[in-house]
Amino acid sequence: MNPGDRVRVERGDRTFEGVFLPSSTDDHLVVKLAGGYNVGVDREDAAVEVLEADVHDVGEGDGDDEGVASEIAFDEDLPTISLLSTGGTIASTVDYRTGAVTAQFDAEDVLRAVPDLAGRANYRGRVVSNILSENMTPAVWRDLATAVYEEIEAGADGVVVMHGTDTMQFTASALAFALETPVPIVFTGSQRSADRPSSDNVMNAVCAVEAAKADCAEVLVCMHASESDDVCALHRGTRVRKNHTSRRDAFETVGAEPLGEVDYETEEVRVRRDDYRERDETELAIDPDLETDVELVKFTPGMDPAFLDVADGKAGLVLEGTGLGHVHTDLVPRIAELIDGGTTVVMTSQCVEGRVCDRVYDTGRDLLDAGVIEAGDILPGTAKVKLMWTLANASDDEAVRELMETSIAGDLQRRSVPWT
Amino acid sequence: MNPGDRVRVERGDRTFEGVFLPSSTDDHLVVKLAGGYNVGVDREDAAVEVLEADVHDVGEGDGDDEGVASEIAFDEDLPTISLLSTGGTIASTVDYRTGAVTAQFDAEDVLRAVPDLAGRANYRGRVVSNILSENMTPAVWRDLATAVYEEIEAGADGVVVMHGTDTMQFTASALAFALETPVPIVFTGSQRSADRPSSDNVMNAVCAVEAAKADCAEVLVCMHASESDDVCALHRGTRVRKNHTSRRDAFETVGAEPLGEVDYETEEVRVRRDDYRERDETELAIDPDLETDVELVKFTPGMDPAFLDVADGKAGLVLEGTGLGHVHTDLVPRIAELIDGGTTVVMTSQCVEGRVCDRVYDTGRDLLDAGVIEAGDILPGTAKVKLMWTLANASDDEAVRELMETSIAGDLQRRSVPWT
Repeated sequence: MNPGDRVRVERGDRTFEGVFLPSSTDDHLVVKLAGGYNVGVDREDAAVEVLEADVHDVGEGDGDDEGVASEIAFDEDLPTISLLSTGGTIASTVDYRTGAVTAQFDAEDVLRAVPDLAGRANYRGRVVSNILSENMTPAVWRDLATAVYEEIEAGADGVVVMHGTDTMQFTASALAFALETPVPIVFTGSQRSADRPSSDNVMNAVCAVEAAKADCAEVLVCMHASESDDVCALHRGTRVRKNHTSRRDAFETVGAEPLGEVDYETEEVRVRRDDYRERDETELAIDPDLETDVELVKFTPGMDPAFLDVADGKAGLVLEGTGLGHVHTDLVPRIAELIDGGTTVVMTSQCVEGRVCDRVYDTGRDLLDAGVIEAGDILPGTAKVKLMWTLANASDDEAVRELMETSIAGDLQRRSVPWT
Repeated sequence: MNPGDRVRVERGDRTFEGVFLPSSTDDHLVVKLAGGYNVGVDREDAAVEVLEADVHDVGEGDGDDEGVASEIAFDEDLPTISLLSTGGTIASTVDYRTGAVTAQFDAEDVLRAVPDLAGRANYRGRVVSNILSENMTPAVWRDLATAVYEEIEAGADGVVVMHGTDTMQFTASALAFALETPVPIVFTGSQRSADRPSSDNVMNAVCAVEAAKADCAEVLVCMHASESDDVCALHRGTRVRKNHTSRRDAFETVGAEPLGEVDYETEEVRVRRDDYRERDETELAIDPDLETDVELVKFTPGMDPAFLDVADGKAGLVLEGTGLGHVHTDLVPRIAELIDGGTTVVMTSQCVEGRVCDRVYDTGRDLLDAGVIEAGDILPGTAKVKLMWTLANASDDEAVRELMETSIAGDLQRRSVPWT
C-alpha cells in the first residue's frame, strides 16, 4: 500500500473508501474521501484493502480555496471543531529555493501534517488568509472575526485559529473585542517549522483542539508552557505577549498567571483561575467594526516630535511611554493639540509589567490635564486594538473613555501580579 | 545640642569643628565643616562640645550650584566616591501644592537625606542636571559622560550616578559606549519617593556606593533585586531594562543573569559572572560624541508608513520589529529607499528576550537584501543609543555595520539566556 493508492478501510462497523495519504503514521491511517474530506483511522484492528494503485496525486495542497469551508467525515460521538488557517509557521513549508520558510498550507494540509489530530473531533477546515503574521491587517482581523462567527453559528463546538506567532496577540485581542462567544476560540501557532526536529507544531495543534473542546469560552492563545513537550499554557488573548523571539515557550501572560493549561499526554484541560467565562454562558454576538486610523508611538529619549505630527487628524493614538506613563515634557503641548483636534490619546507603558499611573509625577499630571486616557495595565498592543474597536463602537468621546477604562475582555485587570 | 549649633567633635585622634546637621542619626553625627563639606562621625566614643548655639540655617539646600564640585572631609583610609546627581525620584521631594513628586535635590541634599552613606567613603558631590528622567536628552548624556570622566581623572575611586528610573537604561548605555573606565560607574535611583515608608532610596544609594568601591569597573545599574530590603542586583548598563512600572525590583538584566549583587546588611559585593572588566584593567578614555539624528520606530499591525517618512534623510533608524525582526512586507521597499538615501537602519525585536534573525523567513531575507543591519540581542533602547554613538565615531558605513554587529560594552551577547 502506497500513498496515492485508492483503499477501502474497515474498522469496527465503519467503512471508508478513498485515497491513502502520505501523512499517515504508525498509529493512524489518513484517507482522503470522495468530496475531498480527510479521515483518520486508528490502524489497530483496521482492515485495509487496496482497490486501485496510485490513482491520485496527493502531493498537491489546496492552497487556493480561501474561504471555502470543508468538513471531515462526521462522527456523532465527537464534538465539531472549526480549524481556521490564516498562515504562519504552523501552516508553512520550507522553500528549498531560498531556504526560507513560507506560508503555503491550507487547513486540510495542516490536518495532513498533524495526523495526531485525527479521532479527537469532527473538523471543519477553512482558509481565511495565507500570510505570515507580520503582514496581518485590521481588515484580515475583521474577516477572521466574521469567519469565526459563521463557524460558531453553523454549530462548531469550538474554534482553533492557526496563526503566525509574530502578531498573534494583536489578532487574538481583535477577536476578543469583536466577538462574544459561547465556545472556546483558541489561537495556536508554531515557533519552529515542521521540518525541524524541535518543531512545536504537533503538540500546539493537538492541545489547541483539546482546549477548543473544553469549557473555557474565551479567546485564548495555546502555546508551549515550557521548553518541554508536556504542557501547553492557555493565555487570555488580551493579556498575552510574545516575550521571546525564538523559544517555543515565548508566549507569556502579563500581570497574571496563565488562565490554564493543557496536558499533552493526558489531554486534560486545567483552568486555574475562576474568573473565566464558561461554555454557553455568553450568547454569540459580533461587532467586527474597527476604526483603523489609530497609531502606536513608542517614546524614547531624543524622539523627533514629528512622529506626533503623523497622528495629526487621526482618530486615535496610543503612546507607549516610559515608567508610569511619561514622555518628554516638551511633547505635552503637542499632545494637547492632538486631543483638541479630535484625536483620542491613550497612555500605556513600555515597561511591559505594571500599570500606568499619571498622578504621581508632574509630567503625568500635565498629560492628564491635556486629556490623555490612562490605559491601566492594558498592554500597548492590546490598547491599540482596543482603541480601534472602541472608536468604531462607542457612541461618543465619553463612551470611548469609559470603555477604555473598563475591562471588556479581560484586557484591564484590577490588580497586576507579575507571574514568573 | 540642636541642629544648627556650632560644635567641636573629637573621636580618636581626629577633631572636627562645624555645624551640627539634622541629618545626624543615632549612630552618626553629621557636621558641616568650614568650606561647606560634610563629615559623618561615629557617635560611639565621640566627645562633642557645643561651641555656639544655632549659628547657621541648615534647612536650605544648595539646589542652584549645578556643575559645582564639592567635597566631604577627607579620610585617607576611605576610598573617594563621586556622587553625581541628575535628578529623579531619588533626589526628589513631594510638592505639597500639587501632590506630585518633583526633582529638586542636589547631591549634598541626598547625602543629608541618606545619612547611612556617612563613613563609607569620602564623597565628591556634583549636580549635572536636575530633571525627571523622561526629560533626559543625548545632550545631557554627553554632559554626564564628561562629568564622570573629569571625576575619575581627578582621582575618584568610583562614581555613583543618581538618576530617574524611567530612562536610566538609556543613559547608562550612553555612558557605557562613551567611556572606558578603570573604576565602577554605578547608576542608582528610586522607585518610591523618600516620603513613603516603602522608599528604596536609602538601600539603593548605600548599595550603589558599596558597588562603586568594589572591583567591577563597568557601567552598572544598582537597584533592588527583589521586593525585600536585603539585596540589590548589579546589572550591566547595556543589558538592563525597567520591566515594571512601580515595583522596587523593576530592573532586570535581559538575556543573562545579573552581573552581581550587593548584600545590604553585610555590604558584600558579589560578582557572579567572570566576564566583567576589573578595576584598573582599562585605561580611562572618553568618546562622548553622539549623532542625535537617530530615531526608533516600533512596528505594529496597521502602522501608517508615514512614520518611516519621518526618518527620511536622518542618519539612523532603529526598527523594533515583531518576532525575529519583521515588519509588514509592504514597508520593505520604503526601508530600502531610506537605506539608499543614506539612513542606517538597524533591526531589533519588540519581544524583549531573544535575538533577531532575519534569515529564517521571507520578510527578514528581504530586509537583509535591502541592507538592514541585524542587532542580534541588543535591546531596542540600547540599539538606539549605540547607533547614535557608532554613527558619530565610526569612520564609514562599513565600520558602522561592523561596530553594530560587535559587542562594545556587553551590549551584544553571543548567547541569550533568559533569567527568571
